[in-house]
Amino acid sequence: MTPRKIDAQGGFTAAVMSVCQPDHGVTTVFITLPNTKIELIEPLGEGSPIAKFLERNPDGGMHHVCYEVEDIRAARNALKAAGARVLGDGEPRNGAHGKPVLFLHPKDFSGTLVEIEQR
Amino acid sequence: MTPRKIDAQGGFTAAVMSVCQPDHGVTTVFITLPNTKIELIEPLGEGSPIAKFLERNPDGGMHHVCYEVEDIRAARNALKAAGARVLGDGEPRNGAHGKPVLFLHPKDFSGTLVEIEQR
Repeated sequence: MTPRKIDAQGGFTAAVMSVCQPDHGVTTVFITLPNTKIELIEPLGEGSPIAKFLERNPDGGMHHVCYEVEDIRAARNALKAAGARVLGDGEPRNGAHGKPVLFLHPKDFSGTLVEIEQR
Repeated sequence: MTPRKIDAQGGFTAAVMSVCQPDHGVTTVFITLPNTKIELIEPLGEGSPIAKFLERNPDGGMHHVCYEVEDIRAARNALKAAGARVLGDGEPRNGAHGKPVLFLHPKDFSGTLVEIEQR
């Protein structure tokens, strides 16, 4: 962990810590803005789920967007009914915040990997 | 323009209109969520600035992120002082909302094209 302070134009101040998440194969830094969070992710260990992304995008890039939802199973069912494919076995797993998450197929969202997270 | 209503799980309702922006070479749809906006963009006309992105990413994908700032020139100067490259001549132009915007070089932001917009 490397706590640091960032002072950016616009007046926000965020405490920034890098956190190893071996269960998820990533090291994360969350930058908390007034109305959203930016997640920086770096591969951790063998077989990181983001290793392939970096092979395809050696300069890095935007990996996914995450929407908070009130009820992840209700959201999943509504999205499936609308034709979206849910990745994995369709059952929520605990994500980087320890809250249930699901990922949706990028092909169903104009090439964008979408995560939903229980609020 | 195609006004439509979207009712999504979670209770938000957004008025969705597609707007032709020939000055910017794109057609846009803005989806307004409680604390952010999602911008869908489609090339419009010859030489659209997003044509190359779609050539490289035929399935589409995330094109850029935009941060609102209180003072775009102060933000630009702070970012330049921190080593970020500003695209174009460095002077703000009016963007899709009719407000001054600037774009920053993706190589300076881990492969992410970043826009800043005057609030």
